[in-house]
Amino acid sequence: MQIPVGVSARHVHLSQEHLTALFGAGARLHPKKPLSQPGQFASEEKVDVRGPRGTIQNVRVLGPVRPETQLEISKTDALKLGLQPPVRESGRLEQTPGITVIGPQGQVTLTQGVIVAKRHVHFSPEDARRYGVRDGQSLTLRTTGERGLIFENVTARVSPKYKLDFHLDTDEANAAGLQSGDEAEMIELEGLKAQPMPHFHGNEIIRDDSSPQHEKTTESVG
Amino acid sequence: MQIPVGVSARHVHLSQEHLTALFGAGARLHPKKPLSQPGQFASEEKVDVRGPRGTIQNVRVLGPVRPETQLEISKTDALKLGLQPPVRESGRLEQTPGITVIGPQGQVTLTQGVIVAKRHVHFSPEDARRYGVRDGQSLTLRTTGERGLIFENVTARVSPKYKLDFHLDTDEANAAGLQSGDEAEMIELEGLKAQPMPHFHGNEIIRDDSSPQHEKTTESVG
Repeated sequence: MQIPVGVSARHVHLSQEHLTALFGAGARLHPKKPLSQPGQFASEEKVDVRGPRGTIQNVRVLGPVRPETQLEISKTDALKLGLQPPVRESGRLEQTPGITVIGPQGQVTLTQGVIVAKRHVHFSPEDARRYGVRDGQSLTLRTTGERGLIFENVTARVSPKYKLDFHLDTDEANAAGLQSGDEAEMIELEGLKAQPMPHFHGNEIIRDDSSPQHEKTTESVG
Repeated sequence: MQIPVGVSARHVHLSQEHLTALFGAGARLHPKKPLSQPGQFASEEKVDVRGPRGTIQNVRVLGPVRPETQLEISKTDALKLGLQPPVRESGRLEQTPGITVIGPQGQVTLTQGVIVAKRHVHFSPEDARRYGVRDGQSLTLRTTGERGLIFENVTARVSPKYKLDFHLDTDEANAAGLQSGDEAEMIELEGLKAQPMPHFHGNEIIRDDSSPQHEKTTESVG
């Protein structure tokens, strides 16, 4: 069962109140491009976001406006901003960090609203039936290629407003070597074995000492 | 079988010739901190790297010097720099992109040498025997937690110079919610099933239409 992949870059959803504060009285969002989920769009509007450690410029505003302002970033972004947002489903904003959002006509300092989006699959009710999944179910998806990964704990989200799409953030997509439009396969894992073969002693072919090594450093990102 | 995780942030290895070109005649690397692999160290020295689309400052130089200069970055970094480096084992630099490296005393434009490091586990021969693996073998490692992932195609690298460590880049670590010092488990996958249960038709409990949605945008990173 193949599912198309949609990669979510960092973005912000604004409330009408915050849209007005950032873009001025009478401001509205100007659709630039439709998104995979029906009725949702990337707008022409962009904002900067400033955290305790750094600023990220030109963060895309998605529309339409929402009841609450919400910034969705990757962990890589979070390190740059100096924040430690939790991994959350969209809209679950309690006990999340705030941030300062800067628009052309003003700025707003949020007391909460920054999350790293939890990976999930959008299903229409028809697709959910076809794939045999229910809302809230935890799925396992496998991607292929040299950086292929198996993602456990992928939340199924079912709504008549949804269209089939496996949503990952940019860290997850880069880690897996995926782009929007690639596909993942829904699988079931059985018989995970924790041990290698007993009585297998490896072999004596070892790497040439002169070959280059790879090291780690604890330098932080950004 | 647990294996400690080592997260590799972006870094550069320099040849003696390039070290001299960047830091001046008689330059040497000053060890700042030992790395997990014996004899390897993070140096006090840093350089900037400039690609066709952007520059990343303060990239740590690792020591000791190598026969060839090599820059190891994440895919997130590659997007910022405007490069498309392949996923490679360290030292396999044929047909990789070049970049300009900028030091305090000069700059060098490489014709090749930029890679995204292929995930791998370092084993001493003793550990390799204990874990039942051989050099070059492809392993499967599983991490746990809310962003837990199963990494297939992890290369085993065996040498008397190595110490047990599972090396990931920052995209992979962020995607999996891992930090250096966490652990992964070596597993075997059996019975991967591609299909969900037949004759299961899901349920009719669907998400409340008023709940927030999550959208994708194709905005690029950086």
